[in-house]
Amino acid sequence: MKIDVCFSINEYTQPRYLGYSAVVIDVLRATTSIATALHNGCMRLIPVETVEQAIKLKHDRYQDALLAGERKGQLIPGFNLGNSPYEYTKEVVLDKTIIMTTTNGTLALSKARNAEKVFTASFVNADAVARKLYEESRDIVVLCAGTEGRFSLEDALCAGLLAERLTDRAWLSDSAMAAQAMYRDFRCDLVKKISASSHAQYLFSIGYGDDVAFSMEHDAYSVVPQFREGQITA
Amino acid sequence: MKIDVCFSINEYTQPRYLGYSAVVIDVLRATTSIATALHNGCMRLIPVETVEQAIKLKHDRYQDALLAGERKGQLIPGFNLGNSPYEYTKEVVLDKTIIMTTTNGTLALSKARNAEKVFTASFVNADAVARKLYEESRDIVVLCAGTEGRFSLEDALCAGLLAERLTDRAWLSDSAMAAQAMYRDFRCDLVKKISASSHAQYLFSIGYGDDVAFSMEHDAYSVVPQFREGQITA
Repeated sequence: MKIDVCFSINEYTQPRYLGYSAVVIDVLRATTSIATALHNGCMRLIPVETVEQAIKLKHDRYQDALLAGERKGQLIPGFNLGNSPYEYTKEVVLDKTIIMTTTNGTLALSKARNAEKVFTASFVNADAVARKLYEESRDIVVLCAGTEGRFSLEDALCAGLLAERLTDRAWLSDSAMAAQAMYRDFRCDLVKKISASSHAQYLFSIGYGDDVAFSMEHDAYSVVPQFREGQITA
Repeated sequence: MKIDVCFSINEYTQPRYLGYSAVVIDVLRATTSIATALHNGCMRLIPVETVEQAIKLKHDRYQDALLAGERKGQLIPGFNLGNSPYEYTKEVVLDKTIIMTTTNGTLALSKARNAEKVFTASFVNADAVARKLYEESRDIVVLCAGTEGRFSLEDALCAGLLAERLTDRAWLSDSAMAAQAMYRDFRCDLVKKISASSHAQYLFSIGYGDDVAFSMEHDAYSVVPQFREGQITA
């Protein structure tokens, strides 16, 4: 069982990872919100790349669906939900279909869609995902969604947490060792360190600062989101 | 003064880094051999992308030049020098022009060539380069050559050493903070950790294992290689 980490989506190429399971991480905030939604009883999330695709899919097939997502971190006009995990409460999401479009998370899911299995992870459900990966015992590529194709500290640290949880059971690639080292160096001070990251700073600047600490809580949920046939379910 | 790190050459785009100085790192082994050559009195190194370009340049303009470089880590047939820093002794390189072609380092230099200034660094001359960067007080992008466009542990750790040396004087980006954290976690055990990396393991397998420990020696040289107008000089 091997673990490799792609720190940006450009590092991910399908032929290299034939037969691997993929884990997509977009801590701030898509995969945190996905885990929160499924924990709170959401039936399924359907990630799409554009706002137009989201509206069309609702109109054509899922009239009762909620539209969710963000552009530049903000709620999309006319949509029901933004990308803050605080919005995905039981009252709002129970038994619902959510059509979701986010900037980086959706792109990473699209990249990974042909992997053997595709899961999503965040700090809030890292332990559950790590256990699932261990049970499956397949080679794993962790795909950090990053920010516009570039490195994102919070995603890399969450990849490091997965590597840390599986380190006794798996062979770690260079990048997995690196992610683990980052996590080990930062873990005592994780919220402070991640609050200093560029993405967190941006969220503070647009009024979503509370989402940062929320997204850092380890193992709040036992849900393992899996992406198959275009849908994310628990 | 800002420091940003690109963990792979695909992250580097020229418009993003307008006005920055670039530092190219290819620890195993191009930038270690470059520092060693200049320390030992080499007049200049001329990096070129292909074997054919190297041979043509020697024939057309530098008949006395040494041909150096590697493909898959090995000496190129007909060339004078491979890519092992042990080969770049004073006896061999003093007052010489070296035309060099390596797989990853040359590509990274080519990517960075339009930066404000371009330096090369490795563990063997990290302190000298850090001092130079501090004196210049310009924003810096550290470009890890990596391996075939992917993450390389040893290059990331050397980027982390530069970040560590400049941390009191510069603003660190997410990736620079991450590199610094890796370096801090690994520094007590650097040779062992890097020896476990995929590139080091490959060098051991083809008989160049000694190059790994050589390349980890911190601050052996005070030389600051600068790449301008197609040539690397001290």
